[in-house]
Amino acid sequence: MAKNDIGKKAIDLHKKLGGKIRITPAQVVKDRATLSLVYTPGVAAVSSLVAKPATKEAQAKLAKEYTIKKRMIAVVSDGSAVLGLGNIGPYGALPVMEGKAALFKTFADVDAFPIVLDTQNVNEIVETVVRIAPTFGGINLEDFKAPGCFEIEEKLKDLLDIPVMHDDQHGTAIAVLAALINAAKVVKKDLKKLKVVISGAGAAGTAVTKLFAKAGIKDIIVLDSKGIIDASRREAHKKELALMSNPREIMGGLHEALMGADVLIGVSGPNLMGAKEVALMSKGAIIFAMANPTPEILPEEAKKGGAAVVGTGRSDYPNQINNSLVFPGVFRGALDHKVRKITDDMKLKAAKNLAALVKKPTAEKIVPGAFEKGVAQAVAKAIT
Amino acid sequence: MAKNDIGKKAIDLHKKLGGKIRITPAQVVKDRATLSLVYTPGVAAVSSLVAKPATKEAQAKLAKEYTIKKRMIAVVSDGSAVLGLGNIGPYGALPVMEGKAALFKTFADVDAFPIVLDTQNVNEIVETVVRIAPTFGGINLEDFKAPGCFEIEEKLKDLLDIPVMHDDQHGTAIAVLAALINAAKVVKKDLKKLKVVISGAGAAGTAVTKLFAKAGIKDIIVLDSKGIIDASRREAHKKELALMSNPREIMGGLHEALMGADVLIGVSGPNLMGAKEVALMSKGAIIFAMANPTPEILPEEAKKGGAAVVGTGRSDYPNQINNSLVFPGVFRGALDHKVRKITDDMKLKAAKNLAALVKKPTAEKIVPGAFEKGVAQAVAKAIT
Repeated sequence: MAKNDIGKKAIDLHKKLGGKIRITPAQVVKDRATLSLVYTPGVAAVSSLVAKPATKEAQAKLAKEYTIKKRMIAVVSDGSAVLGLGNIGPYGALPVMEGKAALFKTFADVDAFPIVLDTQNVNEIVETVVRIAPTFGGINLEDFKAPGCFEIEEKLKDLLDIPVMHDDQHGTAIAVLAALINAAKVVKKDLKKLKVVISGAGAAGTAVTKLFAKAGIKDIIVLDSKGIIDASRREAHKKELALMSNPREIMGGLHEALMGADVLIGVSGPNLMGAKEVALMSKGAIIFAMANPTPEILPEEAKKGGAAVVGTGRSDYPNQINNSLVFPGVFRGALDHKVRKITDDMKLKAAKNLAALVKKPTAEKIVPGAFEKGVAQAVAKAIT
Repeated sequence: MAKNDIGKKAIDLHKKLGGKIRITPAQVVKDRATLSLVYTPGVAAVSSLVAKPATKEAQAKLAKEYTIKKRMIAVVSDGSAVLGLGNIGPYGALPVMEGKAALFKTFADVDAFPIVLDTQNVNEIVETVVRIAPTFGGINLEDFKAPGCFEIEEKLKDLLDIPVMHDDQHGTAIAVLAALINAAKVVKKDLKKLKVVISGAGAAGTAVTKLFAKAGIKDIIVLDSKGIIDASRREAHKKELALMSNPREIMGGLHEALMGADVLIGVSGPNLMGAKEVALMSKGAIIFAMANPTPEILPEEAKKGGAAVVGTGRSDYPNQINNSLVFPGVFRGALDHKVRKITDDMKLKAAKNLAALVKKPTAEKIVPGAFEKGVAQAVAKAIT
């Protein structure tokens, strides 16, 4: 389907559905006897049981056995950085969050509910999520813009006793690392010795940099709109990036960064570069152009410049590197294994498990497809 | 089943279910083509469409067409006044709110999601609900204690452009008025001329008083733990009650209030009175003892004192007057008819519609059963 056709069809479908998720009773209430168990008077015994312990922590633990807290993830967004559409607010964000909830169920049998927020203030966001958290067994943060997203995630991880993950950061980083593990095999290069250029220092770029470093990759250069990030930067999270990147102390912009690089990860925006820039890279270059729907460089153009392996976020090219491979399994694992914090070690293992699903990686197949069996389970096994 | 059996069975069932609701995709996502419509890239067209208008109001209107805002009610509680259990907090409240969500679906095909709050501060509750409101098409407030519940409801009604109803107030009031309309027919008394005593000046007692007054009942006496409420009271909502009640300026307590009364509405707590007190009332006395699970007086005792019609909140006696007859239909109607405020006129009409479902009221049958056909629809027709 052409892009406009998909858009029109999507609008028609959304109008017909009037919302993409439904609430279903887990127990059909067909008579008075069942009613007296799921509601009054029977429910009073359950409420008393859950509320009995003196501490909130102990109550929360019981709620994880007897209520939806056992299984329910909140997909929370303020709509400040939605897809490639930017800051479109909570109403515009809602269709995306509903879609995400539908995918949670489809790919990992995780129950998830969208909450879009009528505030974009970091402190208000944090206090709101804390206040509604008793219902939920985990928080998937989505489409919050940088740098606020870092603070929101860190604070919530400190304040809550349930797993919190900003998917645009860590879901993306896990998917990209999985793809890179297999791409390195295809071009027969050592993962840890790759020279990597990351274009984009927002939520995704920052998390990719950190997870790559965790994976042992030493030579990473990160760029934002002002060029290569170095120690002269003032913003906190860019200072932090400078500390873990650019070991050869290259100065300049994309051109300088790409000279002899093995890998380009585009998490910035459309039309960053052409075949000419790819030609600056080393032989067997790997290009992941993740901007959606228009990537940093189209696969055919990248190939023209000599790229050996190309991935995008799109479904109409081979190698779709998408966090829908990741987030359902992460929360499936966190719920199943009662994980309170999703650590870097878990993320690294999730990427390795995901990569391992592709038995014989080729230039056209470095990641599994979203509908392949075992994807969520492989990721879930790492979150323990 | 005996009460303890029901409690044990309820606990076992809740453990087995691990939460009483599930999230279901409205559109099964079975292949890549469907994925591209419910999620990226197709969803971007829907998000753009919804976010296009310059005002939040216009965006919200589109969200009511294209997203779950069209159909989703939040069942919100701070757990400060749960059933007869009191202030048990959010975790203890969650099983009740889940049950309510299940009943919304069962009785009126309304999708509802429970949100329990980790705060009992009125201002924090209000700002939290405002911030999460973009997801929802209506707010059902539940089990908030008085007098905070009045302020919370009033503020939210002012601040939000979706219907807000505190069910413990208005759901109860509508159910009780419906029952009284038919009970008056059974004892052949004029509704408007009834001498009514209401024991309890909390959420339910206050709302019942107001709706009775709206129905044209002139002689209402309201009691709280300090006796008959009169103009000497200081609390704002009790002052307000004093203004609309006790026209004969009776002084004293329950004994004085009941002398010659036609109706006793118990919305206070267990074991308020015995047969001796019923005997103080006029012939053909009507007693609704709503405290749950132990009513203000047991039906057999009320009958012994001479009561002609007795109702309770319990399922094991005739005449179960329960707001599950009301709340599903109220929000069904509000969603279907795009109602922003649920007015007193609508509530009055809802009570009349509900009463009218019982073609020939008798002492043993003044309200329809929860599972009778047409209950939610009759109520929904009034909310327009």
